[in-house]
Amino acid sequence: MSTLELPDIQRTTPEHPIAINCVGVKGLRYPIQLELRSGQQATAAEFSLAVSLSEHERGTHMSRFVEELSRFCSRVSAETLLAATMDLRQRLSSDSASIDVVFPFFLERRAPVSEIQALVDYQGRMNTDVGPDRSSLTLTARVPVTSLCPCSKEISDYGAHSQRGYVTIEAATTDARIHSQGGIDLTDLVSIAENAASAPIYSLLKRVDERHVTMQAFDQPAFVEDVVRAIASELSSDSRVAGFSVEVENQESIHNHAAWARIQSPQ
Amino acid sequence: MSTLELPDIQRTTPEHPIAINCVGVKGLRYPIQLELRSGQQATAAEFSLAVSLSEHERGTHMSRFVEELSRFCSRVSAETLLAATMDLRQRLSSDSASIDVVFPFFLERRAPVSEIQALVDYQGRMNTDVGPDRSSLTLTARVPVTSLCPCSKEISDYGAHSQRGYVTIEAATTDARIHSQGGIDLTDLVSIAENAASAPIYSLLKRVDERHVTMQAFDQPAFVEDVVRAIASELSSDSRVAGFSVEVENQESIHNHAAWARIQSPQ
Amino acid sequence: MSTLELPDIQRTTPEHPIAINCVGVKGLRYPIQLELRSGQQATAAEFSLAVSLSEHERGTHMSRFVEELSRFCSRVSAETLLAATMDLRQRLSSDSASIDVVFPFFLERRAPVSEIQALVDYQGRMNTDVGPDRSSLTLTARVPVTSLCPCSKEISDYGAHSQRGYVTIEAATTDARIHSQGGIDLTDLVSIAENAASAPIYSLLKRVDERHVTMQAFDQPAFVEDVVRAIASELSSDSRVAGFSVEVENQESIHNHAAWARIQSPQ
Amino acid sequence: MSTLELPDIQRTTPEHPIAINCVGVKGLRYPIQLELRSGQQATAAEFSLAVSLSEHERGTHMSRFVEELSRFCSRVSAETLLAATMDLRQRLSSDSASIDVVFPFFLERRAPVSEIQALVDYQGRMNTDVGPDRSSLTLTARVPVTSLCPCSKEISDYGAHSQRGYVTIEAATTDARIHSQGGIDLTDLVSIAENAASAPIYSLLKRVDERHVTMQAFDQPAFVEDVVRAIASELSSDSRVAGFSVEVENQESIHNHAAWARIQSPQ
Repeated sequence: MSTLELPDIQRTTPEHPIAINCVGVKGLRYPIQLELRSGQQATAAEFSLAVSLSEHERGTHMSRFVEELSRFCSRVSAETLLAATMDLRQRLSSDSASIDVVFPFFLERRAPVSEIQALVDYQGRMNTDVGPDRSSLTLTARVPVTSLCPCSKEISDYGAHSQRGYVTIEAATTDARIHSQGGIDLTDLVSIAENAASAPIYSLLKRVDERHVTMQAFDQPAFVEDVVRAIASELSSDSRVAGFSVEVENQESIHNHAAWARIQSPQ
Repeated sequence: MSTLELPDIQRTTPEHPIAINCVGVKGLRYPIQLELRSGQQATAAEFSLAVSLSEHERGTHMSRFVEELSRFCSRVSAETLLAATMDLRQRLSSDSASIDVVFPFFLERRAPVSEIQALVDYQGRMNTDVGPDRSSLTLTARVPVTSLCPCSKEISDYGAHSQRGYVTIEAATTDARIHSQGGIDLTDLVSIAENAASAPIYSLLKRVDERHVTMQAFDQPAFVEDVVRAIASELSSDSRVAGFSVEVENQESIHNHAAWARIQSPQ
Repeated sequence: MSTLELPDIQRTTPEHPIAINCVGVKGLRYPIQLELRSGQQATAAEFSLAVSLSEHERGTHMSRFVEELSRFCSRVSAETLLAATMDLRQRLSSDSASIDVVFPFFLERRAPVSEIQALVDYQGRMNTDVGPDRSSLTLTARVPVTSLCPCSKEISDYGAHSQRGYVTIEAATTDARIHSQGGIDLTDLVSIAENAASAPIYSLLKRVDERHVTMQAFDQPAFVEDVVRAIASELSSDSRVAGFSVEVENQESIHNHAAWARIQSPQ
Repeated sequence: MSTLELPDIQRTTPEHPIAINCVGVKGLRYPIQLELRSGQQATAAEFSLAVSLSEHERGTHMSRFVEELSRFCSRVSAETLLAATMDLRQRLSSDSASIDVVFPFFLERRAPVSEIQALVDYQGRMNTDVGPDRSSLTLTARVPVTSLCPCSKEISDYGAHSQRGYVTIEAATTDARIHSQGGIDLTDLVSIAENAASAPIYSLLKRVDERHVTMQAFDQPAFVEDVVRAIASELSSDSRVAGFSVEVENQESIHNHAAWARIQSPQ
């Protein structure tokens, strides 16, 4: 029996004629080739793909999302992701379409004194949203950093508590920027996050390096408030960024909960 | 040395005079007494509490969030959570304040034929947002259900794939409604979700019950699209609900990813 | 149609006559009343319950596990959990039975200088294993602590990196001990873990307290190796403990991975 | 200041002279090139690496684990992982060493009727343990499958509940086998799991395929007990397997908990 002979009940009339904002597949893991300014790298990603559905159609065709994904996963960049979203919108005859992809990515980091190199892992995300008169892409990087508490340093005779913190920067970009050479990249978000913290994080440090980052963090204490503000200040003056949200979450070493702060650009 | 003599560097001037939307504590686990229409129940919750910070202050006082939490956790309802948020805003002299709490909750369910009872677990969430001229509360319930695929049933000579689905309903309520007797409750959201699915889920079913729910699901096949629409239709006409978002995620038994759909009320 | 008339295909003969070590239910969330030395507390737990199945029976009766759980969850202690496991073994006519339960629990902690109090959350676990000639119970506590690196302190002119660490202690106890007054308790495991770390963790600290714990940690630097050894030494000489495993995982503030160590008692 | 001049306090004498079973790094994400029988594929992995520590040494040298990892991650197979573990043991002058690596991997699957292809994701794991007189490697695959309940089918007039299940097979192999051509591979474990279930899972199915897998599952109902037994029977007679554990967890569509079973080979 061929597909043509089977009834397509997705095409029937819905009981409640209400438009659906998003319908599609979620939590689909797929290998990708990610294009970063630092070069191409292979990683394993998790995708959600969706379209809008009018009040007249009962269901979407789920298999088409997976077919679309198979097509572009061999080269994932801002450009290819937006192009795939536009293609998805057209293939499913929808008003709007969106793709969301989350993945770990890796950058080579050189230890500050020994200069020995190893990869550090970051969490990346790209979201698109394409409609009849809009087309946007948001890049997100979650960056581990060292944070040292200014209050603890100030009030104690010696020492100061430090901890791992996570900086999450979401940066929306514009269509024009995406297609120019000078568009913002996940590697830029990593640099901006690391510069605002007490110290960057490394995978591989020898003793001379550990000495260096210990004193660097002690010399640059920063509250979550200080870090989000420094990053918001930087992003506000970056012409490649159309809008942003920055969040810092310190996994406090003296508590079992986090200190956190968030600044969103005015909308 | 007393607190009075220690420097309060949170009160110093920030390097970047930028207002912060949210600053506070995150991921703080605390036991609560939850008030539902079905009665009070004890559970373990996870809290985030935050305030806004003006461009003139360097840092907030993190310990006050935990003090506030200790005060109201013995009775958590829409009313007490809003009151605590207002109190937090005042105690921290902030423009706005918010509380977010996530917890499992449990409802007694009677098996459809044997009538044997056991508790089913749901995920609940309550969010508040209080500002100079606003005060809102959003209730969220994540409800496990049985879903059976209408397409699979239609195109196959026998059988139809079914799976566990999760319905997530967010319902914003208004101040007036919260303080009236007739406000919407997490238990209402559970009922709305279960009614729209192919069948409700139970913890304890004897063979006569399993026979019943197997045939009930086969008799009521539903796509994710059907379920979100039925719920959106219901919520749209509910005068207790000021706005909503409804999401259904079916953990497809024939795939390793989910089918999902979301409808948000017009804003 | 009553249960009696429905076929019970669990009782049929299995295709492959192989005995099954464990079969039952997993990931079942249920509210419990937990009995600790510090008193009774309500919390939300996650259960696995299982029995062994002989090579002659095709399937177990899943609903009986949930019925058993409903019976004893109103009072969960070493004694009630072992009794329930024995009951389960009998009711399901099995050679062996086991129950595993995981839950957050909370202890009141007094800040070291201000003496202000708040609850700290810990992760607890209890496992039973009952067979024809054995009956054992293992208690596990996962305890957040502050750790400060001795190497970083030694090699740096000032400062030393610190971070949140998690100590996990598993302690097997004997039947005789469980039923005596002097049996070991989750609260004992928490104290043992906190004493071995650079400093305990608190939910609520005022500035005088933060000064205290900052200097306490700097005065007691400890590697993961130091902490597991101190705890192993303590547990080895504790007559209430029949066997143990201790694991420490420091969420390094200078890396995005953990330093960890584990000691198991000789078996 | 060079490393040579900095004190090495890891080499000092421990306060408690107790040997440590495992000490090292945990939760380290790194990109790998994975070698499977189906070819080489790039993915993102999470590593734990450890060695034993004698009672005379205070601490291990954490940076050496990361250096070792950088060396072999460009080609991860049973052979290279065992060789790296042996190297780690030697470089850290330890009695024993172990490596644990977890990663998603992907296999091309052809839909049963349309023959359209797409990748399905599986979770893989490899563990090594090398000591003075032992050297072992365990492969683990977690495989999503479709399961359909035999009881529900038997007792109902029509329909039968189905759900996604996860089969986890751990297979220990021997040194001789690893270095021969005929050693077992993660792809073998996937096939064994899929063959024992009601139906395999696919990422991409057209309507003709959905019809096929719906009826296939209805024709091959299987309890968790049936599936673990079929797989245990298969593994028991496989000369490449020195020992095994097989676990099946069905995410029941009529409950919010799982049905599960486990068989371990006699040790």
